[in-house]
Amino acid sequence: MSFEFRLLKKDKDSHARLGELDTPHGMIQTPIFMPVGTQATVKTMTPEELKEVGAQIILSNTYHLYLRPGHQLIEKAGGLHSFMNWDRPILTDSGGFQVFSLNDLRDITEEGVTFSSHIDGSRHFISPEKATQIQMALGADIIMAFDECPPYPAEDDYVQKSLERTTRWLKRCKEALTRDDQALFGIVQGGMQKKLREQSVKEITDIDLPGYAIGGLSVGEPKEIMYDILGFTTPLLPGNKPRYLMGVGSPEDLIEGVMRGIDMFDCVLPTRIARNGSVFTQLGQMQVRNATYEEDFTPIDPYCDCYTCRNYTRAYIRHLIKRNEILGFRLTTYHNLYFLLKLMEKMRAAIRDNRFMEFRREFYQQYKGKI
Amino acid sequence: MSFEFRLLKKDKDSHARLGELDTPHGMIQTPIFMPVGTQATVKTMTPEELKEVGAQIILSNTYHLYLRPGHQLIEKAGGLHSFMNWDRPILTDSGGFQVFSLNDLRDITEEGVTFSSHIDGSRHFISPEKATQIQMALGADIIMAFDECPPYPAEDDYVQKSLERTTRWLKRCKEALTRDDQALFGIVQGGMQKKLREQSVKEITDIDLPGYAIGGLSVGEPKEIMYDILGFTTPLLPGNKPRYLMGVGSPEDLIEGVMRGIDMFDCVLPTRIARNGSVFTQLGQMQVRNATYEEDFTPIDPYCDCYTCRNYTRAYIRHLIKRNEILGFRLTTYHNLYFLLKLMEKMRAAIRDNRFMEFRREFYQQYKGKI
Repeated sequence: MSFEFRLLKKDKDSHARLGELDTPHGMIQTPIFMPVGTQATVKTMTPEELKEVGAQIILSNTYHLYLRPGHQLIEKAGGLHSFMNWDRPILTDSGGFQVFSLNDLRDITEEGVTFSSHIDGSRHFISPEKATQIQMALGADIIMAFDECPPYPAEDDYVQKSLERTTRWLKRCKEALTRDDQALFGIVQGGMQKKLREQSVKEITDIDLPGYAIGGLSVGEPKEIMYDILGFTTPLLPGNKPRYLMGVGSPEDLIEGVMRGIDMFDCVLPTRIARNGSVFTQLGQMQVRNATYEEDFTPIDPYCDCYTCRNYTRAYIRHLIKRNEILGFRLTTYHNLYFLLKLMEKMRAAIRDNRFMEFRREFYQQYKGKI
Repeated sequence: MSFEFRLLKKDKDSHARLGELDTPHGMIQTPIFMPVGTQATVKTMTPEELKEVGAQIILSNTYHLYLRPGHQLIEKAGGLHSFMNWDRPILTDSGGFQVFSLNDLRDITEEGVTFSSHIDGSRHFISPEKATQIQMALGADIIMAFDECPPYPAEDDYVQKSLERTTRWLKRCKEALTRDDQALFGIVQGGMQKKLREQSVKEITDIDLPGYAIGGLSVGEPKEIMYDILGFTTPLLPGNKPRYLMGVGSPEDLIEGVMRGIDMFDCVLPTRIARNGSVFTQLGQMQVRNATYEEDFTPIDPYCDCYTCRNYTRAYIRHLIKRNEILGFRLTTYHNLYFLLKLMEKMRAAIRDNRFMEFRREFYQQYKGKI
């Protein structure tokens, strides 16, 4: 099965690039943001609404689906696409990030990780082979290698041992993958040390794969460090393969990532903050629960033409969110995803028109972080 | 403003009737079920989805909107239609039912009711005039008289005094209503005694109004008593005015109500049970959370052609509901409303075709209550 990646254009003033990636469930235009559907649903959204807001590919979480409802059940349903009624591409993570986040509940060996479920404490073992088998049962178009994401901060020595094991585990994942309609992406680790990032890039990209991801960023480090490591690492990756920055999704980070040569992003941020009433606007991120919007009969973002902004006022959405009404969570989630996916579309257009850095400048002239 | 009610057909073997009611926001075909949008939203649903499932008119609750966000705010928004983005007819209740349900928290006099908010304990006073003013600010097409709904069981003496006060309050509501684009419906009370129901019907229908409701049923009495009182009371109401049975909405009760001559119904039942995983099917009401549906890859109701049943399996919906995923609540709510509104459509067709009692027989041959 073909996972051809076509580089259509490179920006003249930055590392930003425009591309297309073929998958068994259709083509993805890059750079792209992937909404997260942790439990086989992007929270509050139907598949049709995901298409309306411009989602080309979504991400789902192996760890959660493995525990509930179980990958065997999803396999019996005909795979994740069929189970959740989504016919466009899906990417699954390996479960590694969630398992390593369990801290006191897990035990790492060269063979794999033993951990206790966060739900019922039951003991489980996941290895590179097991993670790959689970992802084969789920049937996503793109699957991720089982890696270790070191915490921040961490000792160089630990980070180096960890990234070397991540390389060995990647080889085992590649060995274990027997489906030819799934693309395995390797993950570069290496913490916040450039020499370790360099070592990881070399080891990981020595293994021929259809795409590579950068993991271990946005784990608590200052933004300057993240951007510095990202700007150093991304250009080291092969230019003819898609590059995926894991777990990043604020408007600023998407722009900074694209500028540094990233093609794919995912993050729970837009959907999670939406359910708390936080929404993106051209001027910055605003909290619609605030009393100041009580009698504000304007849309969330007057410059936005999404379903939410065309039909509902801040006053009404504030009322719904404060009452915990599901429609409120739906409207803010819809808007936030539309906003981010529109931002990606604008970036793709700017790269195409050779004006990415101008677009970035204009964006920051308006967008002021939290407002 | 015209609230013309046209009686198109009467069933030959029962009291069932087919009609049309004009309102400022469009015509309603009767008999009809009204989904309930307590807090200016039919829980989980957008207005577009309500239209998809066949909602012609919705109900909203004066008590809740008066407390939060406040009727003045909604008036500033241009009224409830504009506030919630719903351009079809709306009916508001008077708040009486909720206020009287507060039991220990309220104090009744001839003037009105003083009560403590269930939210913050703050003291409020609602009279027939106040209830009408609030409903004028909300701006629904049909507004309800401020009545007292006696508990079940209650002493005849209390019920009689109460129904007589309800009549006096109705006159004050009618006096207070100054908008000509709102239809005031009176409410017949009288508990479970036919002579008291007869007295209430006489007093209430002596006041010329565009429609009449039956209150005080489905308040805890056995089904046989409810059907008996309903069958006695409904034919006493004027034949040329719409008749609304308040707070009733199970499939069986809708059929029994229509057979006895009711034109309009409302109930939170279909939306409330949906959020607990209970769904209507042709065979009866089923609980999709049950383990038996874990690997059931068929639709909720194989005979249903709604969005939910065309696209999702019991196994997937069970997974979503058990995970408290909003999409699960959306899918079951959508289905339950579609089911009830389709049932009303089928009943209208059966009356039109002079086969209502045959339809009723066929329905009960399949539908077996809870399954």
